[in-house]
Amino acid sequence: MIDEHHIDALEKLLGDKGIVTGREDMEAYETGARYDRGRAAAVLRPATTEEASAAVGYCVRNGIALVPQAGNTGLVSGSTPDGSGEEVVLSLDRLTRRFALDPDNRSVRVDAGFRLSELNRRLEEYELFFPIDLGADPRIGGMVATNTGGSRFLKYGDVRRNILGLKVVLADEAGTVLDLHSDLRKNNTGVDWKQIFIGTSGAFGIVTECVLNLERLPKQTATAFLVPASGAHVLPLLKAMEERLGAYLSAFEGMSKNAIAGALAHVPSLKNPFPGGNVPEYVILAEISRSWAPRDGEQPLDAVLESVLAEIWETEEAPLADALVGPPHEVWALRHALSEGVKHLGKLIAFDLSFRRGDIMTFCDHMKAEMPQKFPAVTICDFGHIGDGGVHFNVVVAKDSPLLADAAFEQHLREWVVAIAVEQYHGSFSAEHALGRRNQAFYDFYTPEKLKNIAAGLKTLTSPGKLGSVRFG
Amino acid sequence: MIDEHHIDALEKLLGDKGIVTGREDMEAYETGARYDRGRAAAVLRPATTEEASAAVGYCVRNGIALVPQAGNTGLVSGSTPDGSGEEVVLSLDRLTRRFALDPDNRSVRVDAGFRLSELNRRLEEYELFFPIDLGADPRIGGMVATNTGGSRFLKYGDVRRNILGLKVVLADEAGTVLDLHSDLRKNNTGVDWKQIFIGTSGAFGIVTECVLNLERLPKQTATAFLVPASGAHVLPLLKAMEERLGAYLSAFEGMSKNAIAGALAHVPSLKNPFPGGNVPEYVILAEISRSWAPRDGEQPLDAVLESVLAEIWETEEAPLADALVGPPHEVWALRHALSEGVKHLGKLIAFDLSFRRGDIMTFCDHMKAEMPQKFPAVTICDFGHIGDGGVHFNVVVAKDSPLLADAAFEQHLREWVVAIAVEQYHGSFSAEHALGRRNQAFYDFYTPEKLKNIAAGLKTLTSPGKLGSVRFG
Repeated sequence: MIDEHHIDALEKLLGDKGIVTGREDMEAYETGARYDRGRAAAVLRPATTEEASAAVGYCVRNGIALVPQAGNTGLVSGSTPDGSGEEVVLSLDRLTRRFALDPDNRSVRVDAGFRLSELNRRLEEYELFFPIDLGADPRIGGMVATNTGGSRFLKYGDVRRNILGLKVVLADEAGTVLDLHSDLRKNNTGVDWKQIFIGTSGAFGIVTECVLNLERLPKQTATAFLVPASGAHVLPLLKAMEERLGAYLSAFEGMSKNAIAGALAHVPSLKNPFPGGNVPEYVILAEISRSWAPRDGEQPLDAVLESVLAEIWETEEAPLADALVGPPHEVWALRHALSEGVKHLGKLIAFDLSFRRGDIMTFCDHMKAEMPQKFPAVTICDFGHIGDGGVHFNVVVAKDSPLLADAAFEQHLREWVVAIAVEQYHGSFSAEHALGRRNQAFYDFYTPEKLKNIAAGLKTLTSPGKLGSVRFG
Repeated sequence: MIDEHHIDALEKLLGDKGIVTGREDMEAYETGARYDRGRAAAVLRPATTEEASAAVGYCVRNGIALVPQAGNTGLVSGSTPDGSGEEVVLSLDRLTRRFALDPDNRSVRVDAGFRLSELNRRLEEYELFFPIDLGADPRIGGMVATNTGGSRFLKYGDVRRNILGLKVVLADEAGTVLDLHSDLRKNNTGVDWKQIFIGTSGAFGIVTECVLNLERLPKQTATAFLVPASGAHVLPLLKAMEERLGAYLSAFEGMSKNAIAGALAHVPSLKNPFPGGNVPEYVILAEISRSWAPRDGEQPLDAVLESVLAEIWETEEAPLADALVGPPHEVWALRHALSEGVKHLGKLIAFDLSFRRGDIMTFCDHMKAEMPQKFPAVTICDFGHIGDGGVHFNVVVAKDSPLLADAAFEQHLREWVVAIAVEQYHGSFSAEHALGRRNQAFYDFYTPEKLKNIAAGLKTLTSPGKLGSVRFG
């Protein structure tokens, strides 16, 4: 437990801007983006790796539990303290000094507290960007801790694929700094240690600096809403697009009618793009893009998309029932409003699942068939990243539903959905949100003992102190 | 040490095809692709993961040292036994049964003994391939153990990027099988354990099955030899190509005059493509490709390449001195002959280095300036993967050179080159060949103690038995 003496000592290490203890000032650090409200003993805000190292070492030597927090935009209670009031938040929000661009190498070294939006704003003049496309605006260190993917995974991959190097503070008595800080794309001289800090919610160490791979900004983009002939035609449509568009294809996002309806109902600025306002059962947002400027003699990208859609229209499989080519900002506005929209429909019970691509629509059909019997009066509002197998499987319960009176209902529903996803479809219960208190029980249940033991051992080898909201062992 | 009793017991587990003990029959398993000749106590050839597990468990319980071997095409003595005659080779060459393609998911599950060529031959009818392009023809398990990159890294990445799942046999008393065997592209539910088996030379476990990401086969390709205005113009040329060609660019390979001359002199089928037969100081092989068939209205890829080169020709930076667009098979024939060619020039001392992209040519210039004073009468024949920072930095010593009489000469030269690469340029001493006995000393010297300790601990947690030719601890 932290006391006045510890507060004074930590303030000496971090300066008066480096520690927050006021109840109101701590509130933002205690509150998760979607669920939960915890209680912090204090919030530490180191401005450099050296400060982080000193503070972490102090806390470990004094048995103080630390929860690392970056942008606090995560959705699984991975970066907020529990309710005990004994955990100290270690925030990256002042780690925003270093920004060392290497345009020749297409890479940048940044402090882990940088916001994604600020990073990309600074990169824009060089026509470069960090190619992870998200609705939220996290800090880079948190993106590493969750290994997030986003809407353009299909083209650019996840955070793991775009990390060249890390600097990490271990939760040991020395606050050891590991410099895994390579700018190299090819380097096979031992264990690639940075991998164990990616997607592991800060439990093995606190990322304070990153070297990121950058990609060239798209300069031409064409988008369309595609209406598949049926749910069974979604995958053939994806394959037909991949066959004809290859590396042009930068998004292939699925949206259910219910999710779209939620967005249209609750985000008044949105235009209903569908003829007669009739939202189809399922809609694909397809995007193609190129990173170079238009050239003489080259077919414009809109024309490429139209001619490919016309060709797919004619194929024997006939996966396409309708297509509406529209300007990117309008098309994406609907996609980005889905999260907000479904929240307004009632109490949201959200799942971040992934499957083999061939199983996504089968799983969703399975749910649509069985859920109404098992849990009457819930609405399925799924949307997701069909191109890479991810699905944000959302279940909404009307706010006045008697189901909500049953304390066990949500837990029961969650376990039922996850069991089918993991056991019947060999899917993942956390595609891109990683682990937090919210899904700890699923980790405990589905992880083989052998892997838990290796994880516990690795934790002892790296960060034996109390670190993070997740128990891996 | 292995004795008759152990041989009998292992033969019972693996059948008579599953164990080799004849001196002549073992020779191919004892001989490295480039360096060294070891001596095996026996060669085990399990045909299934279960057999591998049983054999490995038996060996660990009896203190028998194992060296895993896949295609044995590695270049750092990572997969051959040492000279003691006490190590047993565990070969994957009979692990070639399972081939389970999932075209919807663009993935395949294969036994780790599959040859890259055989895998791609089977995938061809589906217009898919495993996108690692190499001169050699390794088995998949070995590609995982080295995390090899190859000539199209720029577009498709390395093995790590293209592995979805692994099955691994640990060297513990039970021969524990870890099923890290996901077909998922997004899965963040704990430590991504497969990462510790990628690029670590089989020291932490033996990969027996893999799930691989597949890409669509290129259907259009255009290639050219580009002559940069000078060494300093190589990087501006790369950037100009990336700016104008984005995801089309699938190779940007550098070749020094000496390396080309070696290939032309020793591979008689090669055509000298350069005007008047005059080989330029440095040549870039550039390739662009698309995975779709030619379409009406779309500019052919040759024309795209030509118009982009014309545009680059006109830029103020003027990085391009000459360009020869030629058919892919002829252009690549020269590139693929380089390794063979330089071997014929004399005694080859080969380095597999990588740098920030901006440092490659600077490093090579540094070497060209200083090496003649330090090591007179050696020839530098470098070539490499400029687009991703890799360089096969080859030094050739004339076979009759008195230098070769000095036993310490090669060691001395190696240490001098690596020290400059790693200490002055922050490069890597093993870009894509991973670790083996050949570069163990560099691992020992350049790896921080803390990381060696964590590696030793991880080894105990996973494979406490004697496994692999590399000591990580």
